[in-house]
Amino acid sequence: MKLAELAQHARAELAGLGDVEIESVTDLEHAHPRALVMVGDARHLASAEASAAGALLVDSQFPATHKPALRARNLRAAFARALAALVPDARAEPGVHPTAVVADGARVAAGAALGPHVVVADGAIIGDRTVIGAGAVVGARARIGAGCLIHPHVTVYADCVVGDRVIVHSGAVIGSDGFGYAAEDGVHLKIPHLGRVVVEDDVEVGANTAIDRGTLGETRIGRGTKIDNLVQIAHNVTIGPGCIVVAQVGISGSATLGEGVVLGGQAGVRDHVTIGQGAMVGGQSGVTKSVPPRAIVSGYPARDHRQALRLDAAAARLPDLFERVAALEARLAALERGGKT
Amino acid sequence: MKLAELAQHARAELAGLGDVEIESVTDLEHAHPRALVMVGDARHLASAEASAAGALLVDSQFPATHKPALRARNLRAAFARALAALVPDARAEPGVHPTAVVADGARVAAGAALGPHVVVADGAIIGDRTVIGAGAVVGARARIGAGCLIHPHVTVYADCVVGDRVIVHSGAVIGSDGFGYAAEDGVHLKIPHLGRVVVEDDVEVGANTAIDRGTLGETRIGRGTKIDNLVQIAHNVTIGPGCIVVAQVGISGSATLGEGVVLGGQAGVRDHVTIGQGAMVGGQSGVTKSVPPRAIVSGYPARDHRQALRLDAAAARLPDLFERVAALEARLAALERGGKT
Amino acid sequence: MKLAELAQHARAELAGLGDVEIESVTDLEHAHPRALVMVGDARHLASAEASAAGALLVDSQFPATHKPALRARNLRAAFARALAALVPDARAEPGVHPTAVVADGARVAAGAALGPHVVVADGAIIGDRTVIGAGAVVGARARIGAGCLIHPHVTVYADCVVGDRVIVHSGAVIGSDGFGYAAEDGVHLKIPHLGRVVVEDDVEVGANTAIDRGTLGETRIGRGTKIDNLVQIAHNVTIGPGCIVVAQVGISGSATLGEGVVLGGQAGVRDHVTIGQGAMVGGQSGVTKSVPPRAIVSGYPARDHRQALRLDAAAARLPDLFERVAALEARLAALERGGKT
Repeated sequence: MKLAELAQHARAELAGLGDVEIESVTDLEHAHPRALVMVGDARHLASAEASAAGALLVDSQFPATHKPALRARNLRAAFARALAALVPDARAEPGVHPTAVVADGARVAAGAALGPHVVVADGAIIGDRTVIGAGAVVGARARIGAGCLIHPHVTVYADCVVGDRVIVHSGAVIGSDGFGYAAEDGVHLKIPHLGRVVVEDDVEVGANTAIDRGTLGETRIGRGTKIDNLVQIAHNVTIGPGCIVVAQVGISGSATLGEGVVLGGQAGVRDHVTIGQGAMVGGQSGVTKSVPPRAIVSGYPARDHRQALRLDAAAARLPDLFERVAALEARLAALERGGKT
Repeated sequence: MKLAELAQHARAELAGLGDVEIESVTDLEHAHPRALVMVGDARHLASAEASAAGALLVDSQFPATHKPALRARNLRAAFARALAALVPDARAEPGVHPTAVVADGARVAAGAALGPHVVVADGAIIGDRTVIGAGAVVGARARIGAGCLIHPHVTVYADCVVGDRVIVHSGAVIGSDGFGYAAEDGVHLKIPHLGRVVVEDDVEVGANTAIDRGTLGETRIGRGTKIDNLVQIAHNVTIGPGCIVVAQVGISGSATLGEGVVLGGQAGVRDHVTIGQGAMVGGQSGVTKSVPPRAIVSGYPARDHRQALRLDAAAARLPDLFERVAALEARLAALERGGKT
Repeated sequence: MKLAELAQHARAELAGLGDVEIESVTDLEHAHPRALVMVGDARHLASAEASAAGALLVDSQFPATHKPALRARNLRAAFARALAALVPDARAEPGVHPTAVVADGARVAAGAALGPHVVVADGAIIGDRTVIGAGAVVGARARIGAGCLIHPHVTVYADCVVGDRVIVHSGAVIGSDGFGYAAEDGVHLKIPHLGRVVVEDDVEVGANTAIDRGTLGETRIGRGTKIDNLVQIAHNVTIGPGCIVVAQVGISGSATLGEGVVLGGQAGVRDHVTIGQGAMVGGQSGVTKSVPPRAIVSGYPARDHRQALRLDAAAARLPDLFERVAALEARLAALERGGKT
C-alpha cells in the first residue's frame, strides 16, 4: 500500500513522498525499506531516521523528518489504524465446519463461520460475519451478535447475550453460576442462578476470564469496555461503557462501575461497591467502599492516590520515626530528672 | 405452582391466600402478579407491598404483610429452595451424543448424559444422572460420581476422583501436575506427579479454577466445600468439609484447611500452613503462618482482624504522627536550650 | 526394578542390598516392602527404619541406615529421577485420532499422537513424539516442537512457536491478543496484535495460564522456565531461561525477567520493569520499578526483603508508638507548664 493511501487509513497527515510502498509496521529493530516505524519519543527520531525504515509515523508536534512520514495528533490511534489497514483480514470463510454440532433449533447467519467441533445449542442465535473458533460452545438460547470473533474454547452459557463486534479470547467463560449459597445448619445450600450475562457491543474479553450470570437479573458489561485476561466478574455486577479492566482484577457481586472506569491489574473490588464515572483504581488495590467519580485511588484499603503515596512514603520512614521517638524519650527523661538543659 | 405448595418446597410458613399462582421469583424491579419477590430488609416492605408482585418472601420476624407471603426463619435458604422448586430441571436427556468419544474400557451409567465432543478415556467411570457438558474431557481411570453437573470444557486428569452431586464449571482443571521441581545445576528437574485429586460429594468448583494433583498422595476437597472461579489449589492441599473459597484465592502446596474455613477473594495461603476449623480470612490477605480455629484474620501478613484494622487506622494517621514528633522535637529542643520550663 | 538399577537412574549411591525389588515411591504413611520412601529430615529416619518400606532414599549426609538405601547429594533431584524411572510412560500411542481435524497444509510428525477432537490449522507443524491432548487447538502456522506434552483444551494461537519437550497444562492459552488500545474521543481503539509468542525448549506452562502475543514483536519464555497455573503474561514480556513463576503471578507488558528469576505466588510486575538475573520476588509483592540482579524483594511497593520485614515489624508496633508519642506530649506539656521535674 502506498504511504499516501495509508495516511488516509491512519487519519494522519502525509509529509514527504506518498508513493513509498509500505507492507508492514515494524519496530525500529526490524525496520526495512517497506516498513513504517512508529516513533513515540522525539529522542528516538535520529535513530529512526538512520534506520532502514521506509517511512515514519510520528507525533504531529515532532520536528520535520527527512524520511517520508505520517504525522498524527493521536499517535497511538494512527498506529492502531495503520496496523488494521495493513493486516490482511484473517477471518475464516463463512460456513459451518462439518464437525460442528448445531442444534436444529439454533439460527446461524449465512455469513457466520463456525470452526471445527463448535457446539451451538438449541435456540441459540449466531449473527452475521461472526467467527466462532474451534471447540467453542454456545449454550441454549444464547445470542451472539454480528461481526464477533469468538476464539477457540470459549464457553457461553445458556441465555447469555453478546452484542455486535465483540471479541472473546480463548478459555473465557460467560455465564457461569454466581457464587451464592444460603448457610443452613452448616451446609451451603446452592442458590440457583437464573439470570444472565449481557455483553454489549464492541467489548473485548480476555483469555480465561470468567463472568458469572446474575442470580435473578443481569451481569452487564457496557459497550466498548475492554477486559483483560484472567479477570473475575461476579454475579450482578454492572460495568459501564468504555471501562478498562486489567488482568487478574476481581470484581465482587453487585458492584457497579460507571462509564470509563479504569481498574489496574490484580485490583479487587468489594461487593455492592460503586465506582464513579472516570475513576481510576491502582494495580493491586483493594476497593472496600464506593469511589467518587474521577477519583484516583490506590492501596489497601483503597484511598486517594496522593494520600496513599504519602502513607507509603511515611511507612518507609517508620523505623527512623521509632528512633526519633526513642531519642525524644531519652532526652525528655533527662530533662525530667532535672538535668541541665 | 400455587403459593401453598411453594411454601412447602421453601420450608416457609404461608401467610395469606395459598392459591396464588406463582411462576417465578423476581427482584422488585421486575415484579409481576405471578412473581414471588424476596424482601431482605424490612425498610423495603412498603415498596414491595406497592409492587405488582403476587406474593412476598419475608423474614419471619418482619411485620405482617397485606400481600400473601412466605415467612421464613432462614430467608436465604427459603429463597434458594423456592428458586429450585420453580426452575424446570434443564438437565440433558440421558444418552451419549454421537460425537462423544468414549473408550471401550470406560463405564458410563445408562442414566448419564454426555454432550457433543465429550471425551471419556479408558477405565474412566461416569455415574448415574451425571451430565457432562460439551467438549469436557475425563482422563483415564478417573471416576465421576452420580448426579454431577460437569460443564463444557472441564478437564479431569487421569486417576482423579469426583464424588456425587458435584458441580464443576467450565474451564476448570482438576488434576494438573503440581508445581514441583528439583533444582540441580541451575536446571529445574520436573518431579513427576503420581498422586491424584479427590473431590468429595456436594462440592462446587468455579469456572477456570485449577486444582493440582498430589505429588504422591492426594489433593482433597472436602464434602460440601464451595470453590469460586479462578482459584488455584496446589498439590497436596487438604480442604476440609463445608469451606468457602472465594474467587482468585491461591492456596500453596500442602496447606490444610479445617472444616468450615472461609477464604476471602484474592487471599493467598503459604505452603504447609494450617487454617483451623471455622477460621475466616479476609479478602486479599496473605496467610503466612498457621491460623487457629475460629480466628478471623486479615491483612499482610494476616493477623487478628481487629488488630489489622487498628494497624490500618494507625497507618492512616502516620503523616500526622510525623508532624507531632517533629513538633515534639522542636519543643524539646527549645526546652533544652534553656527555655523556661 | 532392583534397587541397584534404580540407584543408577536416580544418580544416587547404593547402600546395602541392591537386589531389593522396588515398584513405587511412596510417602511414609503408605510404605510397603516394594516401596522406596524418601526421608527429607534426619529426625524421621527412625520411623522410616521402623516402617514397611523396602528401601529408603536419604541425604548422603545422613547417618547409615539399616534398611537398604539410596544416598544422594541432591535428594530432590534423586527423588525426581527415581519417580521418573518407575513411572511407566503413559504417553499415547503415535497416530491421529479419527475425530481430530488436521488441515491439509499442516505437517504432523509420524511419531506424534493427536487425541480426539484435536484441531491443527493450516500451516501448523507438530513435532515428533509430541502428544496433543483431547480438544487442544493449534492455530495456523503455529509450530510445536518434538517431545512435547500438550494437555487437553490448550489453545495455541496462530503463528506461535513452542520448542521441544515443552509441557502445557489444560486450559492454558498461548498467543491471545495483548491488552492494547488507543484512546480516542473516549473510545478504546483496538491495536491489532501481529506479533507472536515464543516458548523455548523445556518450558512448563500451568493450567489456565494466559500468555499474550507481542504487538509487533515477541513475547518470549526462556528455556527451562517453569510457569505455574493461572499466571498472566502480557504482550512483549521477555522471560529469561530457568525462571520460576508461581501461580497467579501477573507480569505486565514489556517487562523483562533475567535468567533464573523467581516470582512468588500472586506477585505483580509493572510494565516495562526489568528484574535482574537471579532476583527473587516474594509472594503477593508488587514490583513497581526495576530490581537489580540477585536482589530479594517483597511487599508493596517491592523493596529489599529485609527492609520490608523491618517495615512490617515497625508497622505492627505502630499503635504502641502512638501511645508513646501521646505520653511524650503530655510529659513535655507538663515540663513546659513549668512543673518541677
